[in-house]
Amino acid sequence: MEKFEVNILGCGSALPTIRHMATSQVINIREKLFMIDCGEGTQIQLRRSRLKFSRLNHIFISHLHGDHCFGLIGLISTFGMLERTADLHIYCHPELEKLLTPHIDFFCKGMPYKVIFHTFNPSEQTIIYDDRSVTVETIPLRHRLPTCGFIFREKPTQNHIKRDMIDFYHIPVCMINRIKNGEDYVTEEGTVIPNERLTTPSNPPRSYAYCSDTAYLPRITEQIKGIDLLFHEATFAKTEAARAKQTMHSTAEQAATIARDAQVKRLIIGHFSARYEDEAHLLQEAQSIFPETILAQENMNITL
Amino acid sequence: MEKFEVNILGCGSALPTIRHMATSQVINIREKLFMIDCGEGTQIQLRRSRLKFSRLNHIFISHLHGDHCFGLIGLISTFGMLERTADLHIYCHPELEKLLTPHIDFFCKGMPYKVIFHTFNPSEQTIIYDDRSVTVETIPLRHRLPTCGFIFREKPTQNHIKRDMIDFYHIPVCMINRIKNGEDYVTEEGTVIPNERLTTPSNPPRSYAYCSDTAYLPRITEQIKGIDLLFHEATFAKTEAARAKQTMHSTAEQAATIARDAQVKRLIIGHFSARYEDEAHLLQEAQSIFPETILAQENMNITL
Repeated sequence: MEKFEVNILGCGSALPTIRHMATSQVINIREKLFMIDCGEGTQIQLRRSRLKFSRLNHIFISHLHGDHCFGLIGLISTFGMLERTADLHIYCHPELEKLLTPHIDFFCKGMPYKVIFHTFNPSEQTIIYDDRSVTVETIPLRHRLPTCGFIFREKPTQNHIKRDMIDFYHIPVCMINRIKNGEDYVTEEGTVIPNERLTTPSNPPRSYAYCSDTAYLPRITEQIKGIDLLFHEATFAKTEAARAKQTMHSTAEQAATIARDAQVKRLIIGHFSARYEDEAHLLQEAQSIFPETILAQENMNITL
Repeated sequence: MEKFEVNILGCGSALPTIRHMATSQVINIREKLFMIDCGEGTQIQLRRSRLKFSRLNHIFISHLHGDHCFGLIGLISTFGMLERTADLHIYCHPELEKLLTPHIDFFCKGMPYKVIFHTFNPSEQTIIYDDRSVTVETIPLRHRLPTCGFIFREKPTQNHIKRDMIDFYHIPVCMINRIKNGEDYVTEEGTVIPNERLTTPSNPPRSYAYCSDTAYLPRITEQIKGIDLLFHEATFAKTEAARAKQTMHSTAEQAATIARDAQVKRLIIGHFSARYEDEAHLLQEAQSIFPETILAQENMNITL
């Protein structure tokens, strides 16, 4: 199966601690790397991950709190020193382009590559990226400033051909691609060989949804219905529900409720408050509602 | 003796590695903390150091390369979240104020404390900070953009009084402070008791000089003559002397030559190129010229 992997670079919240770095993740889809958020220290975590810098061409920023974007300028600057030549695409709120451009112009003068901003309105659900193998769509969230999540949806892959059947019916090579795409085969005598006899179905397309930062927001369950893996922030335990509401964050229980109601396959919780010495109680709280929950941690990777 | 301590938070160069963080140091003088440079990740290193955030009120920026200042916005933002109320003073090139102000305004809206910029021209030797116990003066350096080092000079402390002599001459309490400051005592009978009989000399004032980044610059030896501890960058080994010259950095040999010619007491070298797996050869190279050399490393602290 082709690679679809989520790498956690940082899963702390606003205040960095010795245990958790600021938010960043890298999604590896068929060896193309997509970064979500880029808190301070992301480039160091990226180096630690051994993911190839040169395969990262697209960065998606959920919102403009520092713990989700202060690492961008360092990453951009380092890419320049590493003699990168490929364009780097940043998908973000228009304000970030305004803020970052003077810094790029000053600190990264003469860089051998271009940073290209693709700005969007995080309050609208929209597809902001689309290539041969994946689409990325925004999930409008509710936080203290305009914020969205992202869904990475793999596109369907071709069916697998049954080599022995191809040989048996003497099917010419020029037909193979159409058969992989689902066509039946018609022999010279006019007999129709149904596609099911010639192929096995491809693996079902996989999907990953990232929801951080957000208040508890039941309406997102529609959009993320049946997702394979959901990352949902769980900044607080339910004992801090009032604080969660006030700061527009979620509790572990709320994250799990979203996962259950959206019937996702697995949940990973993160964006942990600096107040916790460890997050075992957050895990327990979430699992009591949605057993297929795991805790994010730095340098973890999860295969879909 | 009162505290005078240099804490190394990061001693790598432009490209961060897993072994070295970007440049930052904290000088602890009598429990007041002064930061020099603030590369990405400094706030995490500061947390790791267990130095008290609240005792840090002054930050000195040597020059505007990212590895010396990209950590500022994260640090400023975190101080805000920690409900700091004391002003934070940043001493830097005027351009940094221009660049940072829009970021502070956007990302740190409503912070409970003020950031106050004190801008200066790094090409002029000048005293940029002066309080009861210390002065900070700039050392104009030669690098790819305006850059300076800093000298922290402790002010002389009062002499120590000899308690038994004070009792012997029945010296009144109101005179003690003047005697500590070096005055002789005149008895009611008009006899002059020389200060040397009443006090022992205070500890000689200590001094620390920080020189990074810079090309080999012999003229600085005059200004740093006899300094107790010199930090000098040693980005490269002498085998990379051409590269050092081209990028306006120094070799370990050059750093040691400066230390020797300035007759400093001790040298610490840092700002190591990412190309080295370890820096033993840089140490060896420096020690062959100036034996009292040590290698900087993260989380090290050196007492003066």
